[in-house]
Amino acid sequence: MMRVGTMVPPLVGSIRRAAFFCRSAMEPGGGVAMVQGASRGIGLEFVRQLLEKKEKGQVIATCRDPSRASFLQELKGKYTERLDILPLDVTDESSIKASTKSINERYGSLNLLINASGVLSIPGVLQPETTLNKVEKSSLMFAYEVNAAGPTLVIKHMWPLLKLGGQTASERKFSIVANLSARVSSIGDNGLGGWHSYRSSKTALNQLTKNISLEFARRKDPIVCILLHPGTVDTDLSKPFQRGVPEGKLFTPEFSVGKLLAVIEGTEASDNGKFFAWDGQQIPW
Amino acid sequence: MMRVGTMVPPLVGSIRRAAFFCRSAMEPGGGVAMVQGASRGIGLEFVRQLLEKKEKGQVIATCRDPSRASFLQELKGKYTERLDILPLDVTDESSIKASTKSINERYGSLNLLINASGVLSIPGVLQPETTLNKVEKSSLMFAYEVNAAGPTLVIKHMWPLLKLGGQTASERKFSIVANLSARVSSIGDNGLGGWHSYRSSKTALNQLTKNISLEFARRKDPIVCILLHPGTVDTDLSKPFQRGVPEGKLFTPEFSVGKLLAVIEGTEASDNGKFFAWDGQQIPW
Repeated sequence: MMRVGTMVPPLVGSIRRAAFFCRSAMEPGGGVAMVQGASRGIGLEFVRQLLEKKEKGQVIATCRDPSRASFLQELKGKYTERLDILPLDVTDESSIKASTKSINERYGSLNLLINASGVLSIPGVLQPETTLNKVEKSSLMFAYEVNAAGPTLVIKHMWPLLKLGGQTASERKFSIVANLSARVSSIGDNGLGGWHSYRSSKTALNQLTKNISLEFARRKDPIVCILLHPGTVDTDLSKPFQRGVPEGKLFTPEFSVGKLLAVIEGTEASDNGKFFAWDGQQIPW
Repeated sequence: MMRVGTMVPPLVGSIRRAAFFCRSAMEPGGGVAMVQGASRGIGLEFVRQLLEKKEKGQVIATCRDPSRASFLQELKGKYTERLDILPLDVTDESSIKASTKSINERYGSLNLLINASGVLSIPGVLQPETTLNKVEKSSLMFAYEVNAAGPTLVIKHMWPLLKLGGQTASERKFSIVANLSARVSSIGDNGLGGWHSYRSSKTALNQLTKNISLEFARRKDPIVCILLHPGTVDTDLSKPFQRGVPEGKLFTPEFSVGKLLAVIEGTEASDNGKFFAWDGQQIPW
């Protein structure tokens, strides 16, 4: 992992894009980044830093219900022209298709896709299991639907836009897909057990991401896929499980996302299909 | 992996068991083995070899519909007292519970559980994907339900029987859970891509098995969990995909299961949570 220039390469070439967005996206340092699962937590922080740290570039933030995403709406007030908020629910493929259509019409390509959505616990629906006795089929299936199938279907539909983004990028010669995974998904690193649904759903996502990266490479599509471990971050997702986290190991979203963006910026073609922690260290499968 | 005596240890101690089955199960080399997914293919061959290669020991063969399992019924005619056929559908937890109840009443414990059920393709429902474009949510979810959630729920319910089997075994001091996985589930070994649903569902099973093995170890429950890769075996499952298999690499069920039984027989406590190929070689995650 080395840093090579800016994260989002400028767009060149003749691609369909609405005139309104065309100007900024065409300028160096611009480009089109999409953050899927952006209403809160790590996804929201990605949107904020992409807008605040960069002077240019479009950011598409998706979430299940934009009308209730108050933090995103606040950012929209400040970055009216650079931020677009679209509805997307990873469990509803028609909403993924609708977002793809919108993005295609407005931007025509994507340079970066961050799949940040994920589920660990929902009271009454999904609890991180502390023992096999508490593993329920419904929890396993829900975790697989949201954490494994969801991001995969988003990539499936955004694929043509990502391909075009990579082909038309001048600075970096590929677009990037970054899937939020977690260290607990590593089988080799698993020394503790528990959290069966969450762990195994993210393990499935790791395999799917590796699988997709191999197809992109075989087709010579200019798209690099990576998996990211954000550390334990102080968000709604981790809130009920922060007691056991050692001092100094519970990151703020600002810190974690700053590090993850550095990892994304440093992505090279040879990183395709790899799994990196927030500090750039590779994580075993 | 070293061979240490016979695979199924004799049962001792005071456990609930129907008098009819008691005699053979109490004798050296006996014990109770369950093969889940036994109507055909590798599962059926496990049943056959457990009956034919061993002189003693009970075998429980489960499948979705025993009345249609003609090969099992044939074996039942030959091994009337040693073979028991029970209905079990891994997608229907109530059927797992019903089997558990039957086995508890008839045998009281389990020394070996082989989860052999699995799905790769069903015309019109699940096709091994050759490209991301063909990945459907329904296929992913079906593969997760059958290949990952299914065996996990079977182990969840059989856990007390397996624990008792390990506690009361005289020759080997643990019972064994062997989950049929496949080399294509390895992320580290994935160089080809494709088969997204099958691959990632088996990868999830690998993580779940590792997770379960850790809990058994932490609780000091005398149960060892392993994952097995049978090679490419000439069964209904692999039939549509045998064209690309190099000469000599398509195994008969007899050969593969003979090798897998040797691996199971050679299982040591330190193998808990590991993934072995038919030849005893460990497979990376």
